[in-house]
Order: sequence, then structure tokens, then C-alpha cells
Amino acid sequence: MSTLPEINSERLWARLMAMAKVGATAAGGCNRQALTDEDRVGRDLFMQWCQAAGCDVRLDEIGNIFARREGSNPELPPVITGSHLDTQPTGGKFDGIYGVLAGLEVIESLNDGEIVTEAPIEVVVWTNEEGCRFDTAMMGSAVWSGQMTLADAYALTDEAGASVGEELRRIGHLGATPAQCYPVTAAFEAHIEQGPMLEATERTIGIVTGVQHMSRHRIDIDGQEAHAGPTPMSMRKDPMMALARFLPQLYQLAEEHAPDGRMTFGVIHADPGSNNTVPGHLMLTADIRHPQRQSYDAMLAGFHQCVEQACSELELPCSIDCFWDAPGVAFDEGCINAVRAGVERFAYSSREMFSGAGHDAVNVSSVAPTAMIFIPCEGGLSHNEAENAAQEDVAAGCNVLLHAMIEMASVCEK
Amino acid sequence: MSTLPEINSERLWARLMAMAKVGATAAGGCNRQALTDEDRVGRDLFMQWCQAAGCDVRLDEIGNIFARREGSNPELPPVITGSHLDTQPTGGKFDGIYGVLAGLEVIESLNDGEIVTEAPIEVVVWTNEEGCRFDTAMMGSAVWSGQMTLADAYALTDEAGASVGEELRRIGHLGATPAQCYPVTAAFEAHIEQGPMLEATERTIGIVTGVQHMSRHRIDIDGQEAHAGPTPMSMRKDPMMALARFLPQLYQLAEEHAPDGRMTFGVIHADPGSNNTVPGHLMLTADIRHPQRQSYDAMLAGFHQCVEQACSELELPCSIDCFWDAPGVAFDEGCINAVRAGVERFAYSSREMFSGAGHDAVNVSSVAPTAMIFIPCEGGLSHNEAENAAQEDVAAGCNVLLHAMIEMASVCEK
Repeated sequence: MSTLPEINSERLWARLMAMAKVGATAAGGCNRQALTDEDRVGRDLFMQWCQAAGCDVRLDEIGNIFARREGSNPELPPVITGSHLDTQPTGGKFDGIYGVLAGLEVIESLNDGEIVTEAPIEVVVWTNEEGCRFDTAMMGSAVWSGQMTLADAYALTDEAGASVGEELRRIGHLGATPAQCYPVTAAFEAHIEQGPMLEATERTIGIVTGVQHMSRHRIDIDGQEAHAGPTPMSMRKDPMMALARFLPQLYQLAEEHAPDGRMTFGVIHADPGSNNTVPGHLMLTADIRHPQRQSYDAMLAGFHQCVEQACSELELPCSIDCFWDAPGVAFDEGCINAVRAGVERFAYSSREMFSGAGHDAVNVSSVAPTAMIFIPCEGGLSHNEAENAAQEDVAAGCNVLLHAMIEMASVCEK
Repeated sequence: MSTLPEINSERLWARLMAMAKVGATAAGGCNRQALTDEDRVGRDLFMQWCQAAGCDVRLDEIGNIFARREGSNPELPPVITGSHLDTQPTGGKFDGIYGVLAGLEVIESLNDGEIVTEAPIEVVVWTNEEGCRFDTAMMGSAVWSGQMTLADAYALTDEAGASVGEELRRIGHLGATPAQCYPVTAAFEAHIEQGPMLEATERTIGIVTGVQHMSRHRIDIDGQEAHAGPTPMSMRKDPMMALARFLPQLYQLAEEHAPDGRMTFGVIHADPGSNNTVPGHLMLTADIRHPQRQSYDAMLAGFHQCVEQACSELELPCSIDCFWDAPGVAFDEGCINAVRAGVERFAYSSREMFSGAGHDAVNVSSVAPTAMIFIPCEGGLSHNEAENAAQEDVAAGCNVLLHAMIEMASVCEK
């Protein structure tokens, strides 16, 4: 190619803002939870845009949407890109949908430039990435990549008892295409960083080389309910005392594995929850992450040791249940190189980084060469109605995506 | 008196067990919440027993029941005793009702011995001591002693919206006697300890010289919600980090004021309560107690200092709201001496102690000379269906009550 094709920043931004109206919240965010009416409206809108762009659109059995632009060589597996359209209940305008509409913008830009790729290009919407309404994150890509059965996915229910299978049928998005992976030349996912590093270091593009090792644990500690007044401290069986011992140690452990170690305690609850009763039971969750295997393993071992020792010293029965565990992923070197090359062609500032969050790309990477592209988000905020990204960064990430996809799909010179 | 009158342990125990059948739970406890049908049955049964014992029974406007045995000198104010008949939803067989039936047993024993006191004797059931169905503990004694208006008490509602006024009328216990205090010679309340000290030190009687200073606080700490993965620890606004700093300091503070200092954290809750989100908000309660004013004030100041400093260091906005505050009470020396004398006459083992919990006696003490008598409860447990007390201790406490009341009411020699 003699000239450098570029995406149309105005069109991409306009579509992001149009989609943000679907499930818009009063506080400026989006509530477009998986398989709700809002999700249906968003999905239908996306499919209309794809059809208008000349794509062949298909729905699979778990509601994943695939929009295909044919290549010159129908024998070649497609280069795919995509993300998700669903949001958290108080989600933002960029998480997920940016990667979807950036993919569509790649196709529109190829159309504008009358560029023919050898391999087909596909844009994917993965169903239920957020896992908030139906409690399995990255569900659609998990089914597609063979990590979850279709039956298990259909059987997931929301709090009102509605199942994924019923809701897919109700909104008319239960497709006929088998929900299973097929050969893919390369896969990319563009996404807001959902963290503060790009902004803090003033870089436009994150070249994502892999995803952290991560796991989630539920800690249960039994105590003995006792009246807050008469029982001397020394005679109590108080699980909050164990917390007072191990919580500072766990933050210290994260500190010892800085800057990449992460410890998050997002849920905590004491029973019976009476302000004048020593709790008989304490439950909290711990989310532990580190990109390096050795450090991650050390954090995990230290976590167990701190919690168990504190409870043992206080003679409080405790259990630690690892209810979610995602081994880290190293992305494909070829795909990462295509992203690096795209960054270089546009001379964007960049940094190589791990993703701290799970993404559909993690599931996809188990069956196809994959990499990710991050752009900054304001204040590192996401899963938040105030989530925001700059239009020039949105455009930059899409330009890198365009270039990386062109590189992997090969262009037929005009 | 030449002989030492004693109470009838079998009769007292039989009545405790009979009353325990009213609102009995499958797990062996009692659910006789204030102004329910179960409470009505219990109150009616008590009033029948009192009438059978020859008492004049009256109900006041807030449902407090007064059973009176006349003395030889109608000019003298009565010596009163009593407690409450209502229970927690998963309450036990002794909390409250022991003090009520011990009072009735004093009257029965005086009858048996044909003992005439100069001052009248009255046994009181205070309405809604527990404050669980209607959220004001010690309500009946608060109205009687002028610390709560009748209108405010009537207006309290349960979760279903039923008010104290309506429920008093519904169960037929809205009496005509004005709900206000009158001259009292002396007041006593016998109660299970609701703590482990008597059992642990193998004493039969607790001579209660006062009630702890106590207060309850709600701590609110704001953080910033952030994804558990991408956000480095050093860039987080995590209220759990503040907890990790001040919680061990607060337990240390209680330790510095051992053995009488108490710190209890009964309620804790993080928002939004997602296991992969740094909490944007943390709420917990602290219950702080100490019997000595100086130590209590030092604990309170230290509590504020620890919480505020930790939050300030981490630049997390925090607020501390004291939503309940009960100054400590020193009971009347004359009444305490009457209890001491009772213990000595029976040569029971005893210890002098503060009450760690609030009781109707605290309200009564604001308008009358008052003291309390504690007996051990198994494992220090109360507010628990497994609450238990030994028959000999039940009898011992009642013997001390009998003697203390006789001493304050003066006996006319036969």
C-alpha cells in the first residue's frame, strides 16, 4: 500500500454516541445489561449498521453476532475483531461497545478505501461479557471457544429467575449458527484500559501482551455471637479480630509485589449484622492478581498463610474457597507485532502492558492467535457511569486496529 | 426476723418453664416479641398468676403491668422490682422474664411466710424492653421515667407498619393508669448476666454497681470504585485500606483499657459489593463501652483519632456519626448494700460488677434508688435460643432479691 488508510473518526464517534443513547442513564452512563430489551435494541441497531455496510450478518446459538466482509480468498480463515455490547447496571459509553464499533469502523474504512483483503474480516459481538445479570462473565466467548457448554449457558438465570435460553428467544437473538469456534487467522480486541496507567504515563496506545493471573476467593470465618457489653475482649470469638490481623498483612503482601500485584476486597458482610452483637460469622471476598506466575503464586500462598494463621491464633474456624480462577494468558507474538507495527506507522505514543481484567480475547486466545489494543480512559474509571475516553484516542486505537487487521488479512494491491 | 425466709425454687422454676412455652421455638428458645399475640398470652398468664397471689394488678397507658402487694403503711412508697416479658425473635427462656417471675416469687414467698412489709411491694413488667420489633429498647420504662413521650412511643412502628399504639389496643393491654413515675422507696432488677464473667469466675451472684458508659457509631468512608485488575494499589482510593489501618489500632485501644474496655464492630458493608470492584464506600458500626468515665472518654477520643487519621492519610473522606449514646449509671449505694447484705446472709459467692448491657433498671434509676442482681448464664450466652441458667442460680438470685426487698420495705415483726 502506498498510502496509509485511516479510519473516519467522526463516524466512529457518532456511532458511539448513538449507541450510548440505548439504555442511557440519567447520570450519563449506560444500563444495557445482557439480553434485556435495551441490549436487544443495541444489537438490532448494530446489525442494521453492519448490513448497511454490506456485511453478511449471522447469529449463533448463544446470540453471538458475526458481521462478515468477504476477502478475495474465501479459503482463508477470517481475521476477526470484536468485544461486547452489554454493560454493567451503572456502566459507561465505551466499555465493550468501543471494540465492537471500532471493528465496524474498520470495515467501513476498508469500504471507503475500496481495499480488498485476502482473508475475510469479521466483527463479533460476544453475548454477556459482563456477567452481572447472568453470573458468568465472558459467557458468549466461553461457549464459542468450547470452555462452557451451551446447555450450561442456557441454564444461567438472573435474579428474577429468567434464563439465558428464554431471554435469547424472547428478544429474538437465538441464532441458528452453531456456537462453536472455527479457524481464525488472527483475532484482535480494542478496549478502553479500565485502569489509569495510560493516562498517568501519557500514552495513547496500550500494546497488550497478555492478561494477569487472577483468582477470586471467599473467606468465611466463624465466631461466636455475644453481647457487645458484658463479654470481655479476651473471652470473645470475634472474626473481626482476625480481619484486623490479616487485612494489613494482605495489603503489605500486595505492596511486596508492587507495582503489578493486586489485592481487592470487594464484598464484606458480618452476621447477624447487629450493632451490639459480636459477629458470629464474617464473610469477605479477595481478588488476587499478578501478571508473573512466580509472584502470583507467592501472593496466593501468602494470602492463605496470613488468613489461616490469624484465624488459627484466635481459634476461629475459617475456610477459603477459590470460586473463580483464571490462569494468565500470553498473547500471540505475531498479533502483538501487528499491533506494534500499527502503532509505529502512526507514531502514537504507547506502552506494552498486561491487562488487569478479563476480556473475551482471553477466551478467543485459547483457540486463535490473539492480541489486544488499549486506549486511555479518563481517570482510569470504568464500570462507572462517568466512564469517558477522548475522541482522538478512540480514533487512534481504531487506526491501530485497522492496520493490524490489514496486516494479518493481507491486502490485494489494486 | 428470727428465721431466714427463702423462696420456693420449684415454684419459680416451674413458672419459668411454663412461660417458656409461650412463643416457644423449635430450637428451645422463645419468640415473644413485644405486643405480639405471644406477648399477650404471656402477659395475661402473668396477670392471672399475680391475681391468684392476691395482688392488685394495674396496666398503664404504655402497657406496663404493675402487680401490688399492700404493706402495713399505705403512706410509704412501694419497693418495686421487675424486668420485661418480651424477647428477641430468637430469644431464650430467661432474659427479662427471670426478673419478672423472681419478683412474683418474692410476693408468693412473703405470702407463704405470712410476712407483712411496711412498704408495699410491686412487681413490674416493662413493655418492649428488647426494642427489636419496635426500634426503641427499654421503651416502657423510658416512658414511665419521663425519658420518652407517650406520643413518641405510640408512634413507633414495626416493619409491617403496625404501631405501638395500635398493637397495645389490639392485644387489650392499653391501660388507664397514667404512664408516669411515682415515688418509689427502692427498685431492684434481677437478670441473667448476659455475659461470661460470673461463670468464668465461678460466682453465683453479681452485685451490679452500675452500667457502663456506652455509645454506638456509624463510620462511613468514601472511596472510588475501580476495577480490581488494572488499577495499581498505589493509585486506588480503597476504603478497605483505611480499615486495615484503623481496625488493629482500635482493638489495641480496647486492649489498653482492658479488662473493662469493649469495642464491637457488628455491622460492616462495602458498596457496590462486587468481588472485582474496589469498594466506592465502606460502612461499619462501632460499639464502644467502658464503666469508668475517664477511660471511656479516652477510648472515644482514640477511636475518632485512629479512624480520622487513617482516612486522612489515604485521602478518603470519612464521617463518624454517634447514633446512640447512653451515659453510664452508678446505682444507689443503699440498694447495692441491700443486695450485698442479701448475698452475705445466704453466703453465696459473688462479685461486684458493672452491667455491660442496658436494662430497664437504668431508666428506673433516673427517678428512684435502684440496683441490680445478676445470676450466671451458661457460656455467657443470651439473645440466643440456647440461653440457659441453672436452677440453683435462679433460686439464689431470687433469694437475694427477696432479702434486699424485705430490707428496703421493712418487715413488721409478727
